[in-house]
Amino acid sequence: METVDTILAGGAVLTMDAGFTIFDPGAVVVHDGEIVAVGPVDEIEASFVAAEVVDCSGKAVMPGLINAHTHVPMSLLRGLADDLRLDVWLMGYMMPVEREFVRPDFCWLGTQLACAEMIRSGTTCFADMYYHEEAIADATARAGLRAVCGQTILKFPAPDAQSYDESLARTRDFVQRWKDHRLIVPSVAPHAPYTATPDLLRTASALALEFDIPLQIHVAETDTEVDEMRETVGMSPVPWIKQHGVLDPKTIAMHCVHLSEDELLTLQRHNTSIVHNPTSNLKLASGFAPVAHMLELGLNIGIGTDGVASNNDLDMFEELRLAAFLAKGVTLDPTALPARQALEMATIMGARALYLDSLIGSLEPGKRADVIVVDLDTVHNSPNFRRDEELIYSQLVYASKGADVVHAMCDGGWLMRERELLTLDRQSLMAQAQDVARRIDAFLVEREESVLRKLVTIGGLARKETYEVQVKVHMSEEVVRRIEETLAGPDFAIGKSSQRRQYDTYFIFHDKWASRIRYREDEVLVRDNMEPVPEDQVEEVIYRLTLTNETKEREYANSVVLSRSRFDALANRSLRFYREYFDPDEEWQVHKERRRFHVRYSNTEFSVNIDRVVRPSIPGAFVEVKSRTWSAQDAERKAVLIGDLLEHFGVGEDDLLREEYLSLAAHPEQLEPVT
Amino acid sequence: METVDTILAGGAVLTMDAGFTIFDPGAVVVHDGEIVAVGPVDEIEASFVAAEVVDCSGKAVMPGLINAHTHVPMSLLRGLADDLRLDVWLMGYMMPVEREFVRPDFCWLGTQLACAEMIRSGTTCFADMYYHEEAIADATARAGLRAVCGQTILKFPAPDAQSYDESLARTRDFVQRWKDHRLIVPSVAPHAPYTATPDLLRTASALALEFDIPLQIHVAETDTEVDEMRETVGMSPVPWIKQHGVLDPKTIAMHCVHLSEDELLTLQRHNTSIVHNPTSNLKLASGFAPVAHMLELGLNIGIGTDGVASNNDLDMFEELRLAAFLAKGVTLDPTALPARQALEMATIMGARALYLDSLIGSLEPGKRADVIVVDLDTVHNSPNFRRDEELIYSQLVYASKGADVVHAMCDGGWLMRERELLTLDRQSLMAQAQDVARRIDAFLVEREESVLRKLVTIGGLARKETYEVQVKVHMSEEVVRRIEETLAGPDFAIGKSSQRRQYDTYFIFHDKWASRIRYREDEVLVRDNMEPVPEDQVEEVIYRLTLTNETKEREYANSVVLSRSRFDALANRSLRFYREYFDPDEEWQVHKERRRFHVRYSNTEFSVNIDRVVRPSIPGAFVEVKSRTWSAQDAERKAVLIGDLLEHFGVGEDDLLREEYLSLAAHPEQLEPVT
Repeated sequence: METVDTILAGGAVLTMDAGFTIFDPGAVVVHDGEIVAVGPVDEIEASFVAAEVVDCSGKAVMPGLINAHTHVPMSLLRGLADDLRLDVWLMGYMMPVEREFVRPDFCWLGTQLACAEMIRSGTTCFADMYYHEEAIADATARAGLRAVCGQTILKFPAPDAQSYDESLARTRDFVQRWKDHRLIVPSVAPHAPYTATPDLLRTASALALEFDIPLQIHVAETDTEVDEMRETVGMSPVPWIKQHGVLDPKTIAMHCVHLSEDELLTLQRHNTSIVHNPTSNLKLASGFAPVAHMLELGLNIGIGTDGVASNNDLDMFEELRLAAFLAKGVTLDPTALPARQALEMATIMGARALYLDSLIGSLEPGKRADVIVVDLDTVHNSPNFRRDEELIYSQLVYASKGADVVHAMCDGGWLMRERELLTLDRQSLMAQAQDVARRIDAFLVEREESVLRKLVTIGGLARKETYEVQVKVHMSEEVVRRIEETLAGPDFAIGKSSQRRQYDTYFIFHDKWASRIRYREDEVLVRDNMEPVPEDQVEEVIYRLTLTNETKEREYANSVVLSRSRFDALANRSLRFYREYFDPDEEWQVHKERRRFHVRYSNTEFSVNIDRVVRPSIPGAFVEVKSRTWSAQDAERKAVLIGDLLEHFGVGEDDLLREEYLSLAAHPEQLEPVT
Repeated sequence: METVDTILAGGAVLTMDAGFTIFDPGAVVVHDGEIVAVGPVDEIEASFVAAEVVDCSGKAVMPGLINAHTHVPMSLLRGLADDLRLDVWLMGYMMPVEREFVRPDFCWLGTQLACAEMIRSGTTCFADMYYHEEAIADATARAGLRAVCGQTILKFPAPDAQSYDESLARTRDFVQRWKDHRLIVPSVAPHAPYTATPDLLRTASALALEFDIPLQIHVAETDTEVDEMRETVGMSPVPWIKQHGVLDPKTIAMHCVHLSEDELLTLQRHNTSIVHNPTSNLKLASGFAPVAHMLELGLNIGIGTDGVASNNDLDMFEELRLAAFLAKGVTLDPTALPARQALEMATIMGARALYLDSLIGSLEPGKRADVIVVDLDTVHNSPNFRRDEELIYSQLVYASKGADVVHAMCDGGWLMRERELLTLDRQSLMAQAQDVARRIDAFLVEREESVLRKLVTIGGLARKETYEVQVKVHMSEEVVRRIEETLAGPDFAIGKSSQRRQYDTYFIFHDKWASRIRYREDEVLVRDNMEPVPEDQVEEVIYRLTLTNETKEREYANSVVLSRSRFDALANRSLRFYREYFDPDEEWQVHKERRRFHVRYSNTEFSVNIDRVVRPSIPGAFVEVKSRTWSAQDAERKAVLIGDLLEHFGVGEDDLLREEYLSLAAHPEQLEPVT
């Protein structure tokens, strides 16, 4: 009789070995962190004596689940912002919050919270990709789980590095420190083809080869990404990363939703692993990965939850069930991805996908003891059909829950017994997480409170405050033509002039500042030429975002007003993005044709705009006279000059308009008939 | 201060009222089974004193979930057979087992087991459709849940009725007994358009109108069903059921996966409810219901788990989450079916879909007290963002689990406290369920053991045992032509003759009988005419299924053998069905062209087949002589006559073949060169 540490005895032992052997009732023998024997319970009990025998009857004993793609610290962002379009979610919420909060302590805490959740739902090994990966590795090792930890590298500044050179240096240092750890496999993680440069990819790949470590990369998660790759580099993601050496190391390609047959065959030839993320792909509406077909091609596919922020949990039971369901729905074949294969993907095939199958993924003598015990004796899993031992796969995949996991062990160390965590303090982690959430809420509340702050938070746009004195006049076409003639006369030195079509969208906020954002699509038809322009001739389109308030700063004689714009910059995202990001209380459209004259009058620069408003359709035309200003005194002087100019144009007091185009669009009844 | 029964105090109260009011911290006051007040906890506590105050802090207090379509007794068939094609699953497993086991006690037990599972995952009301519905209603009422109980009506014999007239009579009786029950709403449930006659539909509809009760029907679950409706009745399901009055009562249409825009608009005009079953539709590969679009049309859509056998559980948290995820994936729009709307579908909209919204579905004074309390203070739901109160919907939908439900109340009665069931004995139900599973396993094991029994179980085919004496000869074309001439000579009275193309598929089983099933597609080209036939002229196709064994019963002189076929009947399902249902160990194909002569020789009937085997391609031709036989003596006499006949044909001992075509297909090397 051999004396060993532990025997898990009496359960249905699903080995997930090459023959999918099941011992029921079976037993697993663990000694020194290793699986020493697996077999029928009576044979095992006849050969071994253990310090601890765990009664597993009525339960399944199986390999710990492997979450093959996640971003563990994002557990702290669970439920932060959902049901949003990818760019709004990422650029409006995730990135600003990450820029502000992601530091090593955030990553450490988020990792430990994630580990607590993963242990409680049966995961003992995961592949991570995030920032400050050394903190993640440390938090994981202390929690006693196994992980492939991938230090993220971006061509942009990241929360943990100002440049990719710095990231690469960090990564090399991280790999050297952790490469021989019992539980942690360091990894290099160039984030995605579209966030990398060729040089970045080549250096990352060389690093992975040098240390023989896995390389993780997101590939073809969305079709937009694929389209953009084709446009910018002239090829699809897989040939492009292949060209830059990315398929040479032990590579793990995450998502792979939008790949051509050729690309799949390339991955197959390079023995590249794939990770399928069914929940994330649905929740972010990325599309349906052709998993059943990939499996037919013999690719190694792991299953991953992706980060909590796009899931919103780390429950691998939910994930593997969804993988099985979704494959059937997508292929319209209910025999696609049967239960056993789903479980295989979450265990031994997942281990293979992470290049860890010599260590884990199945219960076989010589492998490390990563084991979970799942209660099958529950109402939601009752009754148990047993005429065919394979029916247990269907039970585990289609009806078991994460909460049915009663014990979990990694590398021979107990992580949980009877659902009590042994390596982590759940209450303390939750309290600390709640504290982080409170601070993030406060940061976002402050931002949400002010449209300006929200504008500044998405970054990339320079803040610029400007003041203008201005007046607006509504007149008949006849009068306007006279003004145009006057402007061409000797009193005015005309500088640059242009014709434009301006499509303005106003977002109105019922906040205390009565904030307004104007998104302008400014089609410049022609510059320095006032001749009529053909319909389709557009020289340039300028997109601008301007933040103003409804209230004016000051009003002078002749309805001349001083207006302030609190923000004015080029807009580099779509109207749709801004609409969903700012979520305005009202939205209005004003389209107009503008002739713009730069005028010098009495040694002062003015803009004179002659506008025809086509949406809403307003007869007649408008004349606007404007000038930038920098001081109250300057503003007052310019207000007087504008009064003079109006006299020159023959404009009477009655023609003056207080309303902006926006109010005319909202309340056209306020408009007097054109004189 | 008013004295009341119960106050649920201090949680985040999600009323799901018209304005989606949330009170956090709030309180719900229950008295006499009714919700008396809902509001901020301090206001409530200032106005009411309760016999029992339940502290709900850190938890969500919300309406009990409504499972709008299920077949509760099928909880006893959980995991019985999965990953199969619909017809194999239904006709190969569900229906044979239901025919054998579904009796009132089965339904009663299955309902109570299902109720236990539903309570533990937050469901307090469901809509059922099954057999022996009075047992289901009784079991539900005793468990204290609310249900719409639909007695199923089929045009075929059902487990509880020999005809639909009997079903309708049962239903009327059932409705009369239960129509005023506090918890049960009886309902009439014609199963589906394709399992109903016009008369059945009209009578069911009249019954629903007479008692003002809901009518439940499956509609357009699969595209096959829709295609077949179009073929057989010349229209799609909705116009057809409308024509027969089905949309006149309070109708609930389940699934609605494959409906045209016109059909959706018809349902909208009739205010017909829809139930969406995302898991079942994926698992059975039925397709994707256009839920986001239906919601835009303003249809009332509930969410249902469908029966356990196609899910495999009754967890509404999983179901509403999947509904939200799937809608995003299908529309490629991550803003589709946001969290609050998913929860709405599982509560107030679900109540509206079941025509129960005046009673339940929201927490509002005057409604019945169907309430659940969900723990939000868990690792998998940590942290909680609270800058916007609506974020709680996202928490509940994307991260909460059924197991987070701590308390459940229906009609003011406690069903569960601190996850302990109060109206049901969980252990006893599970033990009884296990006993049923054991009996079903035994029934299926017996069937699986013998291919013959498996054949008989799917029914519809008559069992027929036959014996034949027969001999087979392999010869050159020249010799065969001589035999054909001989058969046309004076010694033989030729009866009916024919030319055929026979496509035979053999399923080989490595069982103790060495069973073989031959599926024959027998194209009869022409009868009573031995002239060559044009390629495409097929008079009739006969599909036959024949069960034989490898071993012969007896062998006579001249290789004449006595063979037995244990089963021979017309095949009314596809080759694909039989392949998946029987799951043979080997499969072989033999295609041949056959000329078949009915011959009278020495006052005895023989068949002479002249066969050319084209797959596998075998040169020369085969002559088979056969005769049915009924006794050993008769067989012996016929064996001698066959010897005489062979002499007539000039066939030598060397030409005789022991092998069947099947063994030639498997081992063509056994064939001697043609003499």
